[in-house]
Amino acid sequence: MPKRWTLSGIAAALRDVYPAGLRGRADLPIRQVATLRDAESENIAFFANPKYRSQLAATRAGAVILTEAAGKDLPDGISALVVPHPYLYYAHVVALLNPGVKPPPGIHPAAVLEEGARVPDSCHIGAGAWIGAGAVLGERVEIHPRAVVGEGVRVGADSVIDSGAVLYPGCRIGKRAIVHSGAVIGADGFGFALDTTVNGAEHWVKIPQIGGVTIGDDVEIGANTTIDRGALEDTVIGDGVKLDNQIQIGHNCVIGAHTIIAGCVGIAGSARIGHHCAIGGAAMILGHLEIAPRTEISPGSMVMKSIVQSGKYTAIYPLETHAEWMKNASALRHASRLANRISALEKKQ
Amino acid sequence: MPKRWTLSGIAAALRDVYPAGLRGRADLPIRQVATLRDAESENIAFFANPKYRSQLAATRAGAVILTEAAGKDLPDGISALVVPHPYLYYAHVVALLNPGVKPPPGIHPAAVLEEGARVPDSCHIGAGAWIGAGAVLGERVEIHPRAVVGEGVRVGADSVIDSGAVLYPGCRIGKRAIVHSGAVIGADGFGFALDTTVNGAEHWVKIPQIGGVTIGDDVEIGANTTIDRGALEDTVIGDGVKLDNQIQIGHNCVIGAHTIIAGCVGIAGSARIGHHCAIGGAAMILGHLEIAPRTEISPGSMVMKSIVQSGKYTAIYPLETHAEWMKNASALRHASRLANRISALEKKQ
Amino acid sequence: MPKRWTLSGIAAALRDVYPAGLRGRADLPIRQVATLRDAESENIAFFANPKYRSQLAATRAGAVILTEAAGKDLPDGISALVVPHPYLYYAHVVALLNPGVKPPPGIHPAAVLEEGARVPDSCHIGAGAWIGAGAVLGERVEIHPRAVVGEGVRVGADSVIDSGAVLYPGCRIGKRAIVHSGAVIGADGFGFALDTTVNGAEHWVKIPQIGGVTIGDDVEIGANTTIDRGALEDTVIGDGVKLDNQIQIGHNCVIGAHTIIAGCVGIAGSARIGHHCAIGGAAMILGHLEIAPRTEISPGSMVMKSIVQSGKYTAIYPLETHAEWMKNASALRHASRLANRISALEKKQ
Repeated sequence: MPKRWTLSGIAAALRDVYPAGLRGRADLPIRQVATLRDAESENIAFFANPKYRSQLAATRAGAVILTEAAGKDLPDGISALVVPHPYLYYAHVVALLNPGVKPPPGIHPAAVLEEGARVPDSCHIGAGAWIGAGAVLGERVEIHPRAVVGEGVRVGADSVIDSGAVLYPGCRIGKRAIVHSGAVIGADGFGFALDTTVNGAEHWVKIPQIGGVTIGDDVEIGANTTIDRGALEDTVIGDGVKLDNQIQIGHNCVIGAHTIIAGCVGIAGSARIGHHCAIGGAAMILGHLEIAPRTEISPGSMVMKSIVQSGKYTAIYPLETHAEWMKNASALRHASRLANRISALEKKQ
Repeated sequence: MPKRWTLSGIAAALRDVYPAGLRGRADLPIRQVATLRDAESENIAFFANPKYRSQLAATRAGAVILTEAAGKDLPDGISALVVPHPYLYYAHVVALLNPGVKPPPGIHPAAVLEEGARVPDSCHIGAGAWIGAGAVLGERVEIHPRAVVGEGVRVGADSVIDSGAVLYPGCRIGKRAIVHSGAVIGADGFGFALDTTVNGAEHWVKIPQIGGVTIGDDVEIGANTTIDRGALEDTVIGDGVKLDNQIQIGHNCVIGAHTIIAGCVGIAGSARIGHHCAIGGAAMILGHLEIAPRTEISPGSMVMKSIVQSGKYTAIYPLETHAEWMKNASALRHASRLANRISALEKKQ
Repeated sequence: MPKRWTLSGIAAALRDVYPAGLRGRADLPIRQVATLRDAESENIAFFANPKYRSQLAATRAGAVILTEAAGKDLPDGISALVVPHPYLYYAHVVALLNPGVKPPPGIHPAAVLEEGARVPDSCHIGAGAWIGAGAVLGERVEIHPRAVVGEGVRVGADSVIDSGAVLYPGCRIGKRAIVHSGAVIGADGFGFALDTTVNGAEHWVKIPQIGGVTIGDDVEIGANTTIDRGALEDTVIGDGVKLDNQIQIGHNCVIGAHTIIAGCVGIAGSARIGHHCAIGGAAMILGHLEIAPRTEISPGSMVMKSIVQSGKYTAIYPLETHAEWMKNASALRHASRLANRISALEKKQ
């Protein structure tokens, strides 16, 4: 970290994001962010969740980001930045104090650019990266070592394609994207027709996947996540969508803007997810259905039909000790008969 | 698309696949396939599912592929190819109209072939691909940029190994395979023995995985799918098997011919899946069990024991609003006691 | 296999691991390990599970590894090594008979080492591998073709990084690690703050992930497994942890020593898993919770809250035919009302 910060310096630097009220020592030196629990005197922490009030009371942080209302719980001698949205403000403070190291512009001698690839001088192309013919990169794009940018791919300005990620031919990525290592964008969708014309020797015939993938601006795609190309039209990822690791998105899905999806989620082909949805980890969404905007799906839940009404939906078998599970699962296998026995008892009364 | 097609030209080109009856304009120009809903006058669509009858009635497609029986619902002025299996025929039409671009034969100067690798002149080896010593490729094999073909691997004729896929030493891949990016074939199976000889310091001892992986002909393997090598004998994937993305297949599994497996499925070690099975997305199959041929497993279902009788099997907690789930999950935790209370009521009568 | 073994030769070579009692022919030639079922006269098998007693009775193995107690069931004419822990001893026998081929030391001319990377002469660096500035490798480390070792990464002695694995900048890997292909260590954790300051245009603001990943000694990491870097502190994987393929570990998780995790498991951020736990395949563990040491989680189970008491826990909807499932799932949707109806009946009595 080259630059040294003070509390008032942070407030000044972020004035355009949100003007914060400063309590306590304006000249307090701030070295780094930290949690309330682990912070020391040159750290700034945040307090947003009332659950952690005891941590606020005991913190040794130099300063805390919190709301006006929470200010009354601030221990004596601790400085503060007072804002309406502490966690959001904290996100900007982390970025301010940790600007990251942008690799320098230039093309590594061990990178390979095929004829007709358009790479502005402001781009960074790492060792062993491969840029196919006709690919077009925006300004300041970073292609890290061993990443593969297929023929005719377009990547918008300021995007980062990490080591070993693969963009299949023709995919379009917007601006300011982050595509983490091992992500695969644009592999063939899973489409086959069963050939039953030879009795007893049925086999699958591949349907060539002639659509592409279109990804909006400000999208982050986690490590080893896969997004298939469309069968006919494109698979579409809206602006601001955030995808965690190891997510699978089938062909022709449409993911609405600013939807956030946690790790290990699977979304089958042609599902349409609304904007501003939140899908919990390892949830599974079947194909050819629609999810209303601003719907929340709990982790591990299987969505088998369209959701018309936004809200929070869940489908999880509750965890038990194995011994209790053995008994309850056994009863569950007869749930329908239990219901019938209840009805029979009711009729007898 | 270099070639321009007419409806009769398509029928003629596919005569050997299946002779289609032509209704309407033989000289109708066909530019591309499309869905019934989105098709325009130079598109050909297909109609196979009665559910979409209203789309057939409203379509603006130039031509439709459908059965003799469905022909009566064809709107006036729309041409048709009449066949017994419209979706299968459609698969062939897509391939005919979209032949794809095979990369030219040759070895990119930035590829690395170790001594003793056998690569026919008809193969395409992309930039940065690595072919280990003793690997043997069939005719016209494509190894895309950054793919890794380990020592002694064999890849059958006309197979495609996409960018960044990894074939561990000694794996065998059949003919006409497609291995998508990020797939890993032949990593070590997960085998350890617990060393309990030092009290309180139990630790795991690796069992070297000395089997391989044998993959049949006409197999497609999705992006980031992993197939482990066997502990002793090989892990075996039968002819015509189709694997979607992010599937995990443990050591010593045997997957029967023409079985199709959707994304995110996990199959634990030594499971034996019959031929012509269909496994839904995110299903999980435990190890050391057998699944009868032609079994269908619903998405998201956990298979904990062998399935002897083919049929359709399901294990999914049904989706509800979170509020309803809270109530029902709570009752489920006492399912066994509820059953006992019903029995008690029955005895009292 | 260059060396030829005899039964007494094996016992002598493993005397330091555990002294085995030899029954039968000391000079019996042993070519390879095998299962009881498939073994032939020059194979050695093991017998540890009483379930396979009939296989022991019928085996044609030259020799069997078994306990003193099981010795009475050994068929006539078959030799044996008698030990207290047959499966553990077998693990060592497999390693002894299959020592593997270590690639020779040296740096492939097509590898790229950036300035300041420290690579001892005893290391093997494969074609197209990339070692970033300031990375430090221990003695005899193997970096296989196309693997990426980021800036400042440290890898302990005798570790193996397989083809195409990616270690993000600053990660620390202990000694004797095996990182399989496609694994991604140190990608950004999934952390965002929702910016709600513009009504109707809520969007996510990235929280830079400034922690790292610290991995202990003797850890194995499966193919395409992902371990995210911490938000503030490091994500920590303890000594001796074994991770199967396609596991996702979120930022700031702490996995205790010698815990073993099967394929497709997802662990959300800030979960703390105790030592010596066993997590079944495709289980899902939510974030910010703790799992007691020596806890066992059944495959496919969702863990939604902390587990204080070690034991075996399960959360699986039991598999049924689809027809039965339709009936029982329907009853389950009214489980809470069924419970109420039972209470009503009880009150009337």
